[in-house]
Amino acid sequence: MADDGVLIDEGLELLTETDARALLATAEVGRVGVTIGALPAIFPVNYGIVDDCIVFRTAPGSKLSAAAAGAVVAFEVDDYDRADRSGWSVLVIGPSEVVHDAELTFKVLDAAIEPWAGGIRTNIVRIRPELITGRRIV
Amino acid sequence: MADDGVLIDEGLELLTETDARALLATAEVGRVGVTIGALPAIFPVNYGIVDDCIVFRTAPGSKLSAAAAGAVVAFEVDDYDRADRSGWSVLVIGPSEVVHDAELTFKVLDAAIEPWAGGIRTNIVRIRPELITGRRIV
Repeated sequence: MADDGVLIDEGLELLTETDARALLATAEVGRVGVTIGALPAIFPVNYGIVDDCIVFRTAPGSKLSAAAAGAVVAFEVDDYDRADRSGWSVLVIGPSEVVHDAELTFKVLDAAIEPWAGGIRTNIVRIRPELITGRRIV
Repeated sequence: MADDGVLIDEGLELLTETDARALLATAEVGRVGVTIGALPAIFPVNYGIVDDCIVFRTAPGSKLSAAAAGAVVAFEVDDYDRADRSGWSVLVIGPSEVVHDAELTFKVLDAAIEPWAGGIRTNIVRIRPELITGRRIV
C-alpha cells in the first residue's frame, strides 16, 4: 500500500516482498537450485512454509539432501497461464540445512507437508529466506 | 521399447532420455539455474527447441544474459497435477552461450519463440544439452 509505483525490471513488474511472500504461500511445488560436483542442478520439491522458512522432505542420503546441507541455495516458485501468457515467479535465496529437531518435525507433520513422491523421506530441509524477489509479466 | 524395466531413483521413476526429450518438447516455460556473484539463482523463461538445443530470448545486458554467457547451466521443466499429486520433471545440464548467428536467429523467429515478457529481448541464449535426465512420480 505504501508503494508509490510499480517498478519494472527487464520488462517485468517487480513485486513487493509482501506480495512475493504471499505468492510463496499459495504454491505447493517449488524448485531448489543447488550445486552438485561443481555442476548446477534444479530439483522440484513439494514444500510448505513453517516459521517463515521453506521446508521440504527428502530421503536421507539423497543427492538433494547432501547438496542442500549447509549450502546457500536458490528456491523458485512460479505459475503461468499458457493461454494468455501471463504469470509470476518468486525467487528465494538463503542458507539451507538439514534439520534434526523434534519441534520442527512436529510442525512439518502438523502442516501436512508430505512428499508426493514415494520412498522414505525423513530428512527435513529448511531454507531461511535472506532475499525474496518476485516478478510478474505485465 | 528396449527398456527391460523401470528404474527407481529415490522413489521416482527414472525416465529414458527419449522420454525426457519428448517431454522437453511439450512445455513452454522452463527454469534456468545460474550463478550470479557466487549465489545461485533460478529464472523462468519461455523457450523452444532448435536443432536439439534449448533456446530462449533475453534482454541484452540482463542479469540472465550475463550469467548464461559461457557458463554451464541447469535447465528444468516440470508439470504437476495438485489434485492427484502426479507429475514429472526433466533436468538438462549443459554449456550455455549467447549466440550471434543470423541462421539461428531466423530459426528462432520461425519457431515463434517469443518472450512472453515485455522489453527488448534480442539476445538469443542457447543451451546444448550434455546431460538429460527425467523423473516421474510413481
